[in-house]
Amino acid sequence: MPVTPRTAPADSKLVKEVLDGIPRAIARMMSRAEAGTEKDREALAEIYRHAGRAHVVGLTGVPGSGKSTLVRALTLRLRKTGRTVGIVAVDPSSPYSGGAILGDRVRMSDLTGDPGVFIRTMATGGALGGLARASLDVVDVLDAAGFDVVLIETVGVGQDEVDIVKAAHTVVVLSAPGLGDDIQAIKAGILEIADIHAVSKCDRADADKTVSELKALLSLGRPGKGPSDWTIPVIPTSAEQETGIEDLLQAIDGHRVFLEQSGEMENRRRQNLELRILASAGDIIQRQLTEGLRDDLAAMIEGALTRDVDPHGAATKLLDLMRKK
Amino acid sequence: MPVTPRTAPADSKLVKEVLDGIPRAIARMMSRAEAGTEKDREALAEIYRHAGRAHVVGLTGVPGSGKSTLVRALTLRLRKTGRTVGIVAVDPSSPYSGGAILGDRVRMSDLTGDPGVFIRTMATGGALGGLARASLDVVDVLDAAGFDVVLIETVGVGQDEVDIVKAAHTVVVLSAPGLGDDIQAIKAGILEIADIHAVSKCDRADADKTVSELKALLSLGRPGKGPSDWTIPVIPTSAEQETGIEDLLQAIDGHRVFLEQSGEMENRRRQNLELRILASAGDIIQRQLTEGLRDDLAAMIEGALTRDVDPHGAATKLLDLMRKK
Repeated sequence: MPVTPRTAPADSKLVKEVLDGIPRAIARMMSRAEAGTEKDREALAEIYRHAGRAHVVGLTGVPGSGKSTLVRALTLRLRKTGRTVGIVAVDPSSPYSGGAILGDRVRMSDLTGDPGVFIRTMATGGALGGLARASLDVVDVLDAAGFDVVLIETVGVGQDEVDIVKAAHTVVVLSAPGLGDDIQAIKAGILEIADIHAVSKCDRADADKTVSELKALLSLGRPGKGPSDWTIPVIPTSAEQETGIEDLLQAIDGHRVFLEQSGEMENRRRQNLELRILASAGDIIQRQLTEGLRDDLAAMIEGALTRDVDPHGAATKLLDLMRKK
Repeated sequence: MPVTPRTAPADSKLVKEVLDGIPRAIARMMSRAEAGTEKDREALAEIYRHAGRAHVVGLTGVPGSGKSTLVRALTLRLRKTGRTVGIVAVDPSSPYSGGAILGDRVRMSDLTGDPGVFIRTMATGGALGGLARASLDVVDVLDAAGFDVVLIETVGVGQDEVDIVKAAHTVVVLSAPGLGDDIQAIKAGILEIADIHAVSKCDRADADKTVSELKALLSLGRPGKGPSDWTIPVIPTSAEQETGIEDLLQAIDGHRVFLEQSGEMENRRRQNLELRILASAGDIIQRQLTEGLRDDLAAMIEGALTRDVDPHGAATKLLDLMRKK
């Protein structure tokens, strides 16, 4: 397999249409990114070469924290500043997700009618860690298509989902007052990845307590991180009353300036690329095993079924076989 | 690297102690499974060869559905039948997780004092899909140590977490009445993996509605699955009132009988092994890249930073380099 095959003429045309921001082409290229088949890689590589301009903002929070509502409010505000917005929703609770069971949920029709906004929902439940690879390829498509800001919305539970949002330049973690104990416990696991804390539902009386708790937590220092010139803000918002959204946007923009001026942007890009390269390598190997080595894999499964070999030993033998082919 | 190195004498002793069910040895072997370093693989392969007897039961549900409470009630009931129970909690909201923030949550002291029960909490947030590989290795340790039933508790959100619970022989999905819309939407994504539905908090008046909804959903047929002789039951429980736990246990035991008699157990084991072998292969490759090819990986990251190569292309080149070494 040649490492850099020439892009097929049809693919070159599609890439050009993506770069021109044609919605139909963007959607098609995203479907290819999701499928991730080898024949589409050169087109996606071309997309990657044209990406790198967008500010990628991750927004996460536990179920019930009001992520989608905030994404909507933030998007409307960004549009007022003249910026275009791509949204990647990797969140089973997102109202963008649609589907029969979610049919009665609120749709974001005021966003989807706007050509300066593009929304893509990523299905979870694909194969074996491919979600991170595919989601970040989809972010590239929006970036290359010229969207100024790309918002990644993920639910703040699940290793893949947290990995994806960590790949953003700026991570906003949303907390809400009055959630149950189980939810609070889950929330604790994502607080440390925040560049910015937002608190939703601040029209409620108990929101002050949530804001104070976050500030108290931050005063203890950021666990596992060195000193930084960035002071993590805690921003009270109320999407209903449309308060705090402007503050949040200023914090997001301020964080980008900080990243660029401090050189931290390069560090983040490097960390992000390491994750993406490793995820891609895992993805490639798994495809080669399930496609090119189908029979050998089946034989190894039988060997493991009778406990003649363990799964790790089977994987090692298959990788050896692959090297010899 | 030889494919099947001889087990070091110290490791043989540790494996023997695990097989004898010595708690300290079990805990040490689990730590090795979590670390997953190459030198421990032969001991873990030996563990795998001795596993295969336990009934592995996965229990999942959205945050707030009461998973840990049900795991506790089920464990106490299993103990009354004389069976020993290993518990693997891959759930940030689990009270077993401990930690400062969770310090005030209820501890399962009535379980942890019982030598017939072994509880292990798996930390999420490790590297790149390694969670599934490590969790299932830990299940093997409990299995080889002779626990009759191994319960895997995961939160029903997140691709890795759902993949792990799907690897169980019998999957129980727990629903609760009166959760918010966001939670309900997430719940929809895991209903289809249930072999058994349990409904918690059935002392509440609105629990009947949850039970009826699940039954109505089941009457529509199981999406994406062929006909099966197993009728998925919906079991109302109340851990507080200790009702329904015996019914749930009967359903779990009944499902095992069904799996064995129908030949479906072999199919599940095969599917599970394919997932484990592929996850291990991805894990091995990522370790080799970050360890053996550290400098080449760093060079590729720089290349991707300047957009001379895309992450997938970088991964392909690194895999080629690896083959040549």
